[in-house]
Amino acid sequence: MIRKILTTLILTGLAATAFAAEEPVTLETLSNDIASVQANADWLWTLIAAFMVFFMQLGFAMVESGFTRAKNAVNIIMKNLMDFSIGALAFWAVGFALMFGATTTGFFGTEGFFISSWDPSDNWTLCFWIFQTVFCATAATIVSGAMAERANFKAYILFSAIMTALIYPIFGSWAWGSLFHGEGWLEKIGFIDFAGSTVVHSVGGWAALAGAIVLGPRIGKFTKDGKIRAIPGHNIPIATIGVFVLWFGWYGFNVGSETAADTALPLIAVNTTLAPAAAIMSAMWLTYFFYKKFDAGMALNGALAGLVGITAGCANVTPAYAVLIGIIAGVVVVFSVQFFEKIKIDDPVGAISVHGVCGAWGTLAAGLFNYNFETGAVEPVILSQVIGIAAAFAWAFPVSFIVFKIVNSIIKVRVSEQEELEGLDFHEHGIDAYPEYSRSYIK
Amino acid sequence: MIRKILTTLILTGLAATAFAAEEPVTLETLSNDIASVQANADWLWTLIAAFMVFFMQLGFAMVESGFTRAKNAVNIIMKNLMDFSIGALAFWAVGFALMFGATTTGFFGTEGFFISSWDPSDNWTLCFWIFQTVFCATAATIVSGAMAERANFKAYILFSAIMTALIYPIFGSWAWGSLFHGEGWLEKIGFIDFAGSTVVHSVGGWAALAGAIVLGPRIGKFTKDGKIRAIPGHNIPIATIGVFVLWFGWYGFNVGSETAADTALPLIAVNTTLAPAAAIMSAMWLTYFFYKKFDAGMALNGALAGLVGITAGCANVTPAYAVLIGIIAGVVVVFSVQFFEKIKIDDPVGAISVHGVCGAWGTLAAGLFNYNFETGAVEPVILSQVIGIAAAFAWAFPVSFIVFKIVNSIIKVRVSEQEELEGLDFHEHGIDAYPEYSRSYIK
Amino acid sequence: MIRKILTTLILTGLAATAFAAEEPVTLETLSNDIASVQANADWLWTLIAAFMVFFMQLGFAMVESGFTRAKNAVNIIMKNLMDFSIGALAFWAVGFALMFGATTTGFFGTEGFFISSWDPSDNWTLCFWIFQTVFCATAATIVSGAMAERANFKAYILFSAIMTALIYPIFGSWAWGSLFHGEGWLEKIGFIDFAGSTVVHSVGGWAALAGAIVLGPRIGKFTKDGKIRAIPGHNIPIATIGVFVLWFGWYGFNVGSETAADTALPLIAVNTTLAPAAAIMSAMWLTYFFYKKFDAGMALNGALAGLVGITAGCANVTPAYAVLIGIIAGVVVVFSVQFFEKIKIDDPVGAISVHGVCGAWGTLAAGLFNYNFETGAVEPVILSQVIGIAAAFAWAFPVSFIVFKIVNSIIKVRVSEQEELEGLDFHEHGIDAYPEYSRSYIK
Repeated sequence: MIRKILTTLILTGLAATAFAAEEPVTLETLSNDIASVQANADWLWTLIAAFMVFFMQLGFAMVESGFTRAKNAVNIIMKNLMDFSIGALAFWAVGFALMFGATTTGFFGTEGFFISSWDPSDNWTLCFWIFQTVFCATAATIVSGAMAERANFKAYILFSAIMTALIYPIFGSWAWGSLFHGEGWLEKIGFIDFAGSTVVHSVGGWAALAGAIVLGPRIGKFTKDGKIRAIPGHNIPIATIGVFVLWFGWYGFNVGSETAADTALPLIAVNTTLAPAAAIMSAMWLTYFFYKKFDAGMALNGALAGLVGITAGCANVTPAYAVLIGIIAGVVVVFSVQFFEKIKIDDPVGAISVHGVCGAWGTLAAGLFNYNFETGAVEPVILSQVIGIAAAFAWAFPVSFIVFKIVNSIIKVRVSEQEELEGLDFHEHGIDAYPEYSRSYIK
Repeated sequence: MIRKILTTLILTGLAATAFAAEEPVTLETLSNDIASVQANADWLWTLIAAFMVFFMQLGFAMVESGFTRAKNAVNIIMKNLMDFSIGALAFWAVGFALMFGATTTGFFGTEGFFISSWDPSDNWTLCFWIFQTVFCATAATIVSGAMAERANFKAYILFSAIMTALIYPIFGSWAWGSLFHGEGWLEKIGFIDFAGSTVVHSVGGWAALAGAIVLGPRIGKFTKDGKIRAIPGHNIPIATIGVFVLWFGWYGFNVGSETAADTALPLIAVNTTLAPAAAIMSAMWLTYFFYKKFDAGMALNGALAGLVGITAGCANVTPAYAVLIGIIAGVVVVFSVQFFEKIKIDDPVGAISVHGVCGAWGTLAAGLFNYNFETGAVEPVILSQVIGIAAAFAWAFPVSFIVFKIVNSIIKVRVSEQEELEGLDFHEHGIDAYPEYSRSYIK
Repeated sequence: MIRKILTTLILTGLAATAFAAEEPVTLETLSNDIASVQANADWLWTLIAAFMVFFMQLGFAMVESGFTRAKNAVNIIMKNLMDFSIGALAFWAVGFALMFGATTTGFFGTEGFFISSWDPSDNWTLCFWIFQTVFCATAATIVSGAMAERANFKAYILFSAIMTALIYPIFGSWAWGSLFHGEGWLEKIGFIDFAGSTVVHSVGGWAALAGAIVLGPRIGKFTKDGKIRAIPGHNIPIATIGVFVLWFGWYGFNVGSETAADTALPLIAVNTTLAPAAAIMSAMWLTYFFYKKFDAGMALNGALAGLVGITAGCANVTPAYAVLIGIIAGVVVVFSVQFFEKIKIDDPVGAISVHGVCGAWGTLAAGLFNYNFETGAVEPVILSQVIGIAAAFAWAFPVSFIVFKIVNSIIKVRVSEQEELEGLDFHEHGIDAYPEYSRSYIK
C-alpha cells in the first residue's frame, strides 16, 4: 500500500516529474497523460458502479425474503447468495466468453474462457468483466423471487449455473456483444437498450415465468373454489431495506452503464430518480382507487417497476418523458400482477411483472420517446424495439422452460408437500430465521 | 453501452488522438482538455455524493420505523417513501425554480419550472438538480419522525408536497440561491452554512416542531398525573441500520457539498468522522451519569446530533474543533430531548432535538470556531449566524404551522383514537409489518 | 457550497483560464495541472473507499447481532458503535502518531498526536488519516464478536481504547509505517500484505482469541458431559445484511488500499469478487458433506473467509489463484471453527477463524502465489510471510491477553451469571431489542 502512497505524495508535490521522468515533456506526451487521467476516471467510475450493482444482491435478497414467509426466509437468502457466487464463477469460466469473446460463429463468442484473453497490460478487460458479472448475477437473481417458497435448492443451483453460463450471455451477445466480435444482430438493427431493461430484466423475468410455470403455485395460493388468497410477506421493513438498496444500486446500474466519467451521466441520474418517484405515485394511487388502502407492497414494487422501466431509455429520453415512463410503469405493474394472479401463475414477489413486463415496457418506451439531442425532436424507433422485446421472450422463456424440464428430470424442482408446509429453512438448511420467536402463522 | 466502451478503449490506446482528432494540439486545447477532465471528476463526485444522500432516505425510514411501535412500522416507511417520491416530483416541478431560478423578485426564483432552463448542452444543471433534490427530500423526511404514529397519511402527503415545493426552497434561496439569481440575503450578510445545518436540518426540525404541536402527543405519552411514559421503539437493530446508513450517506451530504473533487474534501471527511464519534461519547456518558445505563437510543441519536452539528462548519473548522462541536452536540441533544418532553411536546424519534436544535448549535459553532486557514487563527463570526438561525425559525416554524392548520381544515391531520390505538398500518395500509409474529404490546 | 459551484461552472465554460489565470500556460504548468487532476482523483477514490470501509461497521454490527441471541442484540451493537467512536478518537489522539509518525525509536512513531503534524496545505495527511482510521476501527470490531454475550461493557470499552491507541498501531507501524518514519522491519524483509489480511484481520483475530480465552465460554455452550451445544443466532436476515454490507465495504478495503485511481484497481476488484464466491461454495458444500444441510451460517462465514483470504494478495495474484485462495479459505474456516469448538474456546460468531486463521492463510497465500506481472511467472515468497504471520500472533495474542488481565483487575471483564442469563441488553442498557415480541428461548 505504502509504495502507492509515496507515489501519490510525489505526484502531488513534484507533479510533472512523476509523469514524465524519463522522457521530455511535449504536447504529445501531455496529450497522452490527459487521456490516461481521463481513462483512470472512467475505470474508477465503472468499478464503483460495479460495486453498487453488486450491492443490489442484498436488495434482491431482502425484497424476496421480506415479501415471503418466515419459514422460507433463509432459503431465499441462500438462493440469492448462490446466484452471485455461482454466477460469478460461471460467468468467469464460460459466460463472459460467450457474451463478449471473439467468435467464428457470429452468434456468440467462443474465446476467452476464464478471462484467458486477459493479459497484465490489459486491465480494462478485468474492469469490464466485473461490471458485466454483476449484471449477469442480477438477471439470475430475478428468477429466485418468482420461484420462492417451493423450489428445491440443488435444482435451483443447477438452473442458476446454466442461466449465468449460457442463457443470459447468449442473448447478451446479440444486444451488447460487439466488444470483441463485431456487432450482435440486435445491435445491427438499431436496438436501444442502454442499461438492460430487456437484456437483464426481461430475460430474467421470462426465465422466472418459466420457473413459476414449471413449479406451479404454492399450496394454498389458489383455493379449490377459484379464490386467490393473499399470502403476506413476513417482514416489511426488511423488504423496504431491499427496495432502497436496489434503488441506490440502480444508480450504479444505469449511470454506470456509460462506463465512463463524462457529461452524459447527469441526465441518466436524473431520469433514474424521476421515473421511480413517478411510478410509486401511480402504483400507489391506482391500488388506492381499487382497494381504498395505501398498499405498501405495491408502492415498493412501483419503485422497482419505475426503475426497470427507465433502464433501457435512461440515456436517450428527457426528464419529462422519464416521469411519463414511470407513471405508466406503475400502472403496468399493478395490472400485470393482477393478470398473472388471474391466470393462476404464482409469483410470490411479483418478479415477472416488475422485471419481465416492465422491462418490455421500458424497452418500448426507450424507442417511443427516443430524443434527438441535436435537433431537440422525439424520433420514435419502434420496429427494432419490438423485435428485441420479442427476441428476448422467444429466447429466454422457451429455453428456460426446457432447461427447467431437464433439471427436473435430474433433481425434482419442486419440494415435497411436507417440506413446503413445514418450510424450506428447516428441511434444506436445518435453521430457523428467528429461532427465539414463535410463529403464529406458518402455512 | 458498447459505443462508450469502444471510445474508452480508443482513449486508453490512442490517447491524444481521441481528444484532438479534428484540431491541432496546442497549449490552449490541452489546457481546455485538462479542465474538462477535472470537470468530469467534479461532476462524478457530485453525482456519487447525491446517490449517497439518496441512500439516507433508507436511513431515515429505518431510524423512524425502529424507534416507533410495530403497529405503525409500515406507515412511517410509507411516509418516508412519499417524502422522496413526492419531493422529487415537487422539487422538479416547482421547488428547484424557486430556489435557484432567475428572479425578478429578489426574494426567490421565478424561472426554471420542470427544469425547463435545462438544454442538452447544459448537463451541469441536471447534476446540480439531483444533488439539490436529495437535500430537499432530506428536509422533508425529518418532519415525519416527529409526527410519527398519529398523523393521517393523506394530510401528511399534502404537507410534504408543500414543504418540498415551497417552504424548503424559499428559505434555501436566501442562503444558497446565488447560482442563477444573484446572492440571497443571508449569503450577502456572510452567513456560513456549508452543507446545511440550518438550511436542511433546522428548517426540517422547525417544521417538525410545528407538526408535533398541531398533532399533540400520542395517546398515553403523558399521563393524567403528569408522568412522562417512555414508549420504546420496536426494533433496535433496524434503527441501528438507519443510523449507520445515515452516517454513511452523510459523507455524501457534507463532503459532496463541495460539489468538486478537490483538496478541500479530506478535511470535511475527517470532521464528519470525529464530530459524531465525540457526540456518541458525550451523549452516552451523560445519560449514563443520569440513569446508570448505557442508553442505546441516546448513543444512536448522539451520532446523528454530532453529524447535524458538524454539517454547517465541516469545511471551516479544524479537527480538534470538530471534536468539541461533537461533544457539545451530544450534550445538547440529551437536554433538548428532556426539555421537549417536559413541555409536553411528543417527538417519538427526537427529530426536533437532533435536527432543529443541533442544527442551530452547529450553525452557531461554524461561526464561533471559524478558522482562517491562511493565518491559522480562529476568527469568530457571530451576528450573521444568529440572524440565519433566527430567520430559519422565523420562517419554517410559523409557515409550517399555518400550512398544517390549512391542511387540517381540508383533511384532519390527526387520525381517530381508534386508528391510533389499533395502529396506522392496519387502518391506512391494511397490512401488518410482521404478520406471522403476534405482539404482546400494542398500546 | 455555492462558491465552488460557480468555480466549476467557470471551469466548464472557460476551461484553461480557470487553471492558469495568473500565469502563462507552458508545458510545465500544464504538466503540473495534469498531476493535480490525477491527485484529485486519487484522493477522491481514497475518500470514497474510506466511506465504504466505514460502512463495514454496520456490517460487523449486523453479523454479530444476527448471529447471537436477542437478549444481547443491542449490547453487541453498542460495542460496535464504541469500537468506531472510541477508535476514531483514540487513533486521532494517539494511534496514528504511533503508526505513521516520525520516530527516533525505529520501533514506532512518536510524533503527530492529534494529527498535529497536519497543516492546512497538507490535506493528504487528513485523507490518509481517515482511510487508516476506518481500518483501525475494523481491527477493533473483530474482537467484539468473539467476546459476545458475556463481556462487561465498560471493560470492553477500555480494551477497545487500548487496542486502537496501541496494539493495532504498533504492529501496523512494522508492516505499513514507512510513510513518515522510514520502513518498518516487516516491510524491510519484503512482507506482502497489501490490504491487511495480517495487519488488520489476524491482529484483530488474535486479540479476539485472547478475549475469548480470558472470558471463558458462555454458560451452556459446553455441557458437563462434554457435548457442544449449538446456540443459534436470533436473526439470520440481519446477519445476511451484515455479510453483504461487509462485502460491499470490502471493495473499499481492498481496492481502496491502492490509495490511487490507477490501472491496478480492476485486478484487485476482480480478485475481491472471485475469492469470496469460491469460498462460499467450498464452505457450503463441505458442511453439506458433513451434515447434509446447506448451512447458512457457514455459507455466510465462507464469504467473509474468502474476503479475508484475498485481502493480502488481492493485488499480486491472478484471478485463477484468487479462486484457489477462496476455495481453500472456505475449507479452512470450516475446520477452524470445528477446532476451536473442540478445544472449548467459545467464539459466538466465528471471528477467530474468519479473521485470525483465514488472515494467516491469506497472508501465506499472497506469498505462495505471488505473480510477477512482467515475466508472467509465479515467484513464491515464503519466509517473510511466515515471519509476518508469526510476528502478528506473537504480538497481538500475548499483549491482548495481558491487557485483558490488567483490565480485568480494574473492571471484571465477565458479567455475572445472572446478567448473562437474563441478557446484557436488560442489565447494561435497560432495553429490549424487540420489546413488543416475547421470546420463547432465552438461555
